[in-house]
Amino acid sequence: MANEKMVYFYGAGIAEGNASMKNLLGGKGANLHEMASLGIPVPPGFTITTKVCVDYAETKKYHDDLKEIVDENMEKISKVVGKKFGDEENPLLISVRSGSRVSMPGMMDTVLNLGLNDKTLLGLIKQSGNERFSYDSYRRFMQMYGDVVMGIDHDNFEEILSAVKKETDVKLDTDLTTADLKEVIKRYKAMIKDKFHKEFPTDPNEQLWGAITAVFGSWNNERAIQYRKINSIPDNWGTAVNIVAMVYGNMGNDSATGVAFTRDPATGAKRFFGEFLINAQGEDVVAGIRTPQHITKKTADEWGAENGINEDERVKKYFSLEEFMPPAYNQLVDIYKKLENHYRDMQDMEFTIERGNLYLLQTRTGKRTGKAAIKIAVEMVNEGMITKKEAIMRVTPDQLDQQLHPMLDPEGIKGVKPIAKGLPASPGAVHGQIVFSAIDADEWVERGKKVILVRNETSPDDIKGMQVSQGILTATGGMTSHAAVVGRGMGKCCVVGCGDIVINYSNKKVEIPKFELTFNEGDVITLDGSTGRVYKGELPTMDPEFTEEYSIFMNWVDEFRTMGVKTNADTPEDAKRARDFGAAGIGLCRTEHMFFGGDRIKAVREMILAETLESREKALSKLLPLQEEDFYQIIKAMEGFPVIIRLLDPPLHEFLPHSDKDQKTMADEMNLSIEKIKQRVNSLHEFNPMLGHRGCRLGLVYPEINKMQITAILRAAARLIKEGVDAKPEIMVPLIGDVNEFIPVKKMSHKIAKEVFEEFGVTFKYEVGTMIEIPRAALLADTIAKEAEFFSFGTNDLTQMTFGLSRDDAGKFLPGYVEKKILPADPFQKLDQEGVGLLINWAVKKGREANDKLEIGICGEHGGEPSSVEFCYRTGFDYVSCSPFRIPIARLAAAQAAIKDKK
Amino acid sequence: MANEKMVYFYGAGIAEGNASMKNLLGGKGANLHEMASLGIPVPPGFTITTKVCVDYAETKKYHDDLKEIVDENMEKISKVVGKKFGDEENPLLISVRSGSRVSMPGMMDTVLNLGLNDKTLLGLIKQSGNERFSYDSYRRFMQMYGDVVMGIDHDNFEEILSAVKKETDVKLDTDLTTADLKEVIKRYKAMIKDKFHKEFPTDPNEQLWGAITAVFGSWNNERAIQYRKINSIPDNWGTAVNIVAMVYGNMGNDSATGVAFTRDPATGAKRFFGEFLINAQGEDVVAGIRTPQHITKKTADEWGAENGINEDERVKKYFSLEEFMPPAYNQLVDIYKKLENHYRDMQDMEFTIERGNLYLLQTRTGKRTGKAAIKIAVEMVNEGMITKKEAIMRVTPDQLDQQLHPMLDPEGIKGVKPIAKGLPASPGAVHGQIVFSAIDADEWVERGKKVILVRNETSPDDIKGMQVSQGILTATGGMTSHAAVVGRGMGKCCVVGCGDIVINYSNKKVEIPKFELTFNEGDVITLDGSTGRVYKGELPTMDPEFTEEYSIFMNWVDEFRTMGVKTNADTPEDAKRARDFGAAGIGLCRTEHMFFGGDRIKAVREMILAETLESREKALSKLLPLQEEDFYQIIKAMEGFPVIIRLLDPPLHEFLPHSDKDQKTMADEMNLSIEKIKQRVNSLHEFNPMLGHRGCRLGLVYPEINKMQITAILRAAARLIKEGVDAKPEIMVPLIGDVNEFIPVKKMSHKIAKEVFEEFGVTFKYEVGTMIEIPRAALLADTIAKEAEFFSFGTNDLTQMTFGLSRDDAGKFLPGYVEKKILPADPFQKLDQEGVGLLINWAVKKGREANDKLEIGICGEHGGEPSSVEFCYRTGFDYVSCSPFRIPIARLAAAQAAIKDKK
Repeated sequence: MANEKMVYFYGAGIAEGNASMKNLLGGKGANLHEMASLGIPVPPGFTITTKVCVDYAETKKYHDDLKEIVDENMEKISKVVGKKFGDEENPLLISVRSGSRVSMPGMMDTVLNLGLNDKTLLGLIKQSGNERFSYDSYRRFMQMYGDVVMGIDHDNFEEILSAVKKETDVKLDTDLTTADLKEVIKRYKAMIKDKFHKEFPTDPNEQLWGAITAVFGSWNNERAIQYRKINSIPDNWGTAVNIVAMVYGNMGNDSATGVAFTRDPATGAKRFFGEFLINAQGEDVVAGIRTPQHITKKTADEWGAENGINEDERVKKYFSLEEFMPPAYNQLVDIYKKLENHYRDMQDMEFTIERGNLYLLQTRTGKRTGKAAIKIAVEMVNEGMITKKEAIMRVTPDQLDQQLHPMLDPEGIKGVKPIAKGLPASPGAVHGQIVFSAIDADEWVERGKKVILVRNETSPDDIKGMQVSQGILTATGGMTSHAAVVGRGMGKCCVVGCGDIVINYSNKKVEIPKFELTFNEGDVITLDGSTGRVYKGELPTMDPEFTEEYSIFMNWVDEFRTMGVKTNADTPEDAKRARDFGAAGIGLCRTEHMFFGGDRIKAVREMILAETLESREKALSKLLPLQEEDFYQIIKAMEGFPVIIRLLDPPLHEFLPHSDKDQKTMADEMNLSIEKIKQRVNSLHEFNPMLGHRGCRLGLVYPEINKMQITAILRAAARLIKEGVDAKPEIMVPLIGDVNEFIPVKKMSHKIAKEVFEEFGVTFKYEVGTMIEIPRAALLADTIAKEAEFFSFGTNDLTQMTFGLSRDDAGKFLPGYVEKKILPADPFQKLDQEGVGLLINWAVKKGREANDKLEIGICGEHGGEPSSVEFCYRTGFDYVSCSPFRIPIARLAAAQAAIKDKK
Repeated sequence: MANEKMVYFYGAGIAEGNASMKNLLGGKGANLHEMASLGIPVPPGFTITTKVCVDYAETKKYHDDLKEIVDENMEKISKVVGKKFGDEENPLLISVRSGSRVSMPGMMDTVLNLGLNDKTLLGLIKQSGNERFSYDSYRRFMQMYGDVVMGIDHDNFEEILSAVKKETDVKLDTDLTTADLKEVIKRYKAMIKDKFHKEFPTDPNEQLWGAITAVFGSWNNERAIQYRKINSIPDNWGTAVNIVAMVYGNMGNDSATGVAFTRDPATGAKRFFGEFLINAQGEDVVAGIRTPQHITKKTADEWGAENGINEDERVKKYFSLEEFMPPAYNQLVDIYKKLENHYRDMQDMEFTIERGNLYLLQTRTGKRTGKAAIKIAVEMVNEGMITKKEAIMRVTPDQLDQQLHPMLDPEGIKGVKPIAKGLPASPGAVHGQIVFSAIDADEWVERGKKVILVRNETSPDDIKGMQVSQGILTATGGMTSHAAVVGRGMGKCCVVGCGDIVINYSNKKVEIPKFELTFNEGDVITLDGSTGRVYKGELPTMDPEFTEEYSIFMNWVDEFRTMGVKTNADTPEDAKRARDFGAAGIGLCRTEHMFFGGDRIKAVREMILAETLESREKALSKLLPLQEEDFYQIIKAMEGFPVIIRLLDPPLHEFLPHSDKDQKTMADEMNLSIEKIKQRVNSLHEFNPMLGHRGCRLGLVYPEINKMQITAILRAAARLIKEGVDAKPEIMVPLIGDVNEFIPVKKMSHKIAKEVFEEFGVTFKYEVGTMIEIPRAALLADTIAKEAEFFSFGTNDLTQMTFGLSRDDAGKFLPGYVEKKILPADPFQKLDQEGVGLLINWAVKKGREANDKLEIGICGEHGGEPSSVEFCYRTGFDYVSCSPFRIPIARLAAAQAAIKDKK
């Protein structure tokens, strides 16, 4: 540490750091340095590195030299701004803000106006000529410092503020007079002394170090840890501290503060877009306490038109920055263009206008919806700003996933009036039962409910509750409020700033005065995150509509993708949908679901209860034509692409009823005694069905089941071939642990194929392969590959068996494993590359050595999970197979893997 | 095939083959050739090789040249004996017998007297001068040939024979006159023609080829396949056919036939030992139809004394061969000595005396009891005949196992009179319920019964029933009867030739007229296979008594053994017993069994039902002193040796009652509502408990359980160390799948150790290691080995998870897997070296690379199975651990592995 630079200064057109130093200076810090270098007006400041944070977290103390270095840098700020820290005449005030590698909105703590005390306050008054502003700044500082550094709960301050407001009969903070604010500050001091037996620090240096330590400490507060967990951010990254000279957006009506995006973060439209508040400090915008106004006249006009506000009134009450402060606006326009061109990506900026002077406080790559991500990526390629490869790497699979969320069915909502309207913060259409707190959301979801979290606003404490909710609805806040930013990040449907609703937390009601409606906790509503509309009850949704940019983007994806993508589909409908999503074939068609439809289950049960081969074959003969038709339709829907059909997999007891009532019904239907049924159910009972009589083990005891299914598959294909349809059936044997389990099925397939070829007078290519889902099969892949034409890794079961962990039972302790970092992630969600991956790697290597024509794929849930898809690519898979809705994600993940590989 | 010699001739002092050619000529054939070379009198003959059999099994036809070659060899026999095949004056008759690599007694078919027809019969009469003998030979030939070659069931012949006996009012076959036999033959021919529409072949060459083909075919008859399955003999070995000139032991009272052992096959005593029948053919002895007489005067005298027969009567009625035919006897003595010296092992010989001339028909390494195997091995070393290494390789682990069978407790049988006495054919003491057929035995055992199979005699059809029975009791037959030979081979307690009993199959009763006792099916009796005594009811047994030879032998075993042998033991008693058996430490001490004793289960249940950490700790504090005392006693019993204690492993629901009644009792005892208990039972329910919340996963959720157990272990050790006892505790963490599951337990152990060391003022070495029983742990063994001090392979679970096969549920299909050869053996009995073994090999290699001090062992059931022990040796294990009774077997298997390795 001793020889490493601990502090980086910027200001007055120079900077010691730059944008590439995010790991060391945090995102916010690095970009401040970069902006300073670019000549963009930023208040001067310096950054204490993330390494100091990590070091402090370990040793609980600072390097001996740090204090001196910080003092030197404070001096440098002084020189630039011509103010002095702690000076009673012309005091330098600073902000102390955290900034880690990646943006963690609202998660880390900030202190503004630091350096104020009863004496420097007088200097501030003198310097600003604004007594009320100065006392307000002092009040805000005490509140923030008290909360963040001294650990005095926010409520203690709010209580006093409310009391004074009540006593003086005012509604808004801004209506408080200087005298009122003096009273507030007096009471703050008394409260801190009387209730907490502390003295509010008056020494600016004590304040400074208190704040620095609080920022470093906040890296490990619970909210931050929670956020990192959800977003897979390593704990050892640490945060930097940015100490920046204060500028004020709340110095009167010639001051303002705002946030802006170089393009629309919700739609991706190429329009300058943002919100600001007059006479406010930055936190006011993000916190969503006042609903802010538009930056450009154009968006303000649009908003006005949409909300039925006439132009005059709009310009009078809801003016835009463009109209209100043209010079600052024009300067901001120049800056945003410069920044987007410089960073070659959409920027999210914070700015403050102090008495007409514009300062940029932050710029960063803007979070965006999936739709926006695609549109921006495609348009930037068209604008020549980035390459196709960069475009592909810019859209995360999660963003693409958002694009695939269902929308409200236009037919279904025809004539249905929304009950409220807010801002369309994050797209998708969802319904759920109303809950009013994050804790309730968590509890209800635990009980299996789907909920919509309804709040005035959200805060970082709500992260977990937001995560589990279907969607989020807030009464206040704008498109950049906490709920909006976090909701978009999560790909969670979100409507914010919905002023139509009035929430009463205490009796758990939400009222919509406009329509005289009242909803209670548990009532169902539907949110449309793409329009901001809220509906009563559950409305029908439909598959997402895909934009032109989406098609262009996905075409590019396929240009760079080398690995195949197939689908898991059990019905012709699923097959068709998956084809539309870009699937080239079926990687897993499960046949057992077909056994449940209509009267089929009766024949299946007859088969299971049969005591002789003959009666079993009789029951199977009823199923044959039905299965043949199933396969006919599915293979037809996938014409030209291979269709892998897995032979029966689940244990037979899954087809029998287990309750007395259902057993009685079955007994009556089959004209059997209930005892007979109970007896068979008992005889099929298993202690560990996961490790029981299922998969290929069924077909080895009852080859006639395999015979029926293989016959159905090959007959269906033969019919199609005769009809001129390019059918490509493949037969997959599940749960192989030894090649000797595979060989009989392969032989049977060839025998049946010969018969079918003769009967139909056609020949066609078909393949016989196997799942690799038992560890032993992976270990002995070479022996199996000599016989099998393809391997399909069933990573669900392979994970269960490699971990010795039942997915159905792991719920009791697996979340704790992830929480305690025993495992980096739930291995059923993300493929365990270290352990299960080792086994897969071995099997692929051995399999290919033994059979260089072996086709290798995956058909477990992991086939649609991006990091797992990347693993499959690296391991040399021919394809991944996943559920229809995951197909585009798998395509993107595969393309990104290929691009990364070529780098 | 074309260029390989298909037929090998021997006779007249020369031989084309020798004893080393067992694979090609079969055991019987190779030894016939060897004996011929040694100048021992054998009738001339030739052997058709096993390769011809294998070739025939594949192609279903013979090589073009074979017929000519056989004819040439038949000519050679003719020349030696001066008789001609098919000649009407002086016909050559032959035996056609199978002979595979290893002896398969009674399993393969034999035809004697081949070459007889109505014409050659006249030649035989002329040549032998004995009409009755000749017709009897013809009758026997027709019966055997009809049965074996023509497939006409034995009963058809027996029926006719019985009818004629009844008509002529005679009891024994030997009482039938020539005229009677003529009638029998006439009726045989008629029966074959009328009932089966076949003609008995009269052409000797047709007979010859029919018999050869039948022998080859018999390799694949059901009994042979069954025998091979039980004895793990490959199907592709094939059998040879031996064609040998007939000699007759039934040419009158100057003729005899018998079997002899160079040493006692039951005890190993160095005494010539055997049985013979006057005027009989070989099969008569083995079939046990007549009880034979002794060969030596000494054993005949002993038998007489034991059965209270005075010397005169004994010499008159039960003369020995030594007394009856001194010259033949003396010649036989010379031969047996020559053979044992030549083969350097105990021989089992068949001989025939034809009109005073001795012929050896077979010699082979004699089957023996475990006790005999050890005694013979030790004595042969002492006699300088073999080396210690050879001695060790001569005793199979199965034979040693027999030695470890319990015996009747002499105290317990004091004053208890046996109800019957037979020959002590195979040692051990067992009890069970009487059944009268092999089929019944099988059925009763399926239903969970223990049975004693009681038969007049046994036949190869009974193999499976014998296998599943506790013991076998036969009314007839000698020490070399089918029941005796097979029983010894199986290590199955067996009493034969028990003339005291009278069996009535039809009403399922056995009577003992001497005591006027009647036993029904299902009644319990006890057999003592070491004395031949039979007792009513169940008698107390005791641990086996070990002979001096056993001790010597086991000392030699340990001289050559390099791998350690520990025991799985949960109690001080087991620990002591295992130590006596030679265990050097405990490889697995399960702690859960201790949780059930007495009142402990209450505290355990309190702990499980506890809702807070405090109440859980309170319950655990009750268990701590009890566990400490358990560990104190066990570690003490293993003083000087390491004791590996596994932390709690089973899921908690195993400790709760599951029936309503038991739950009610528990509720009353604990003063809780039954709902509360049901609720906890339900919340602990698992779909796949094998893959559920158990092993280290418990301790990670409830670290206080680990804390209690680790504290108890280390406190117990500390107390012992203080008392001067050399305590070596080791803590084993079960079910690890990731090193992160191990580290917290290791840290906790070190923390507790520090506290215990301080409290007791002592320090001692202890180790912390882990089970490797989850495939993932094996795969990631390197990361785990960096932290763990030892690995203990839990091959039970590792097998379950690697195969994806629940041991509890596999019973429904796993036997079929072995039967259909999908798997070579039940992987829960014999370690699957191909699959699970691959994983173990990997883990050992990776583990040792990461930690060269890592100690590696096995504690699954396989630790006491010989082929698995050999695998562990080859894989570089430090030790195997098994149940106390398997310790000597593991020691022997380890020594044999080391000796094989050095070869």
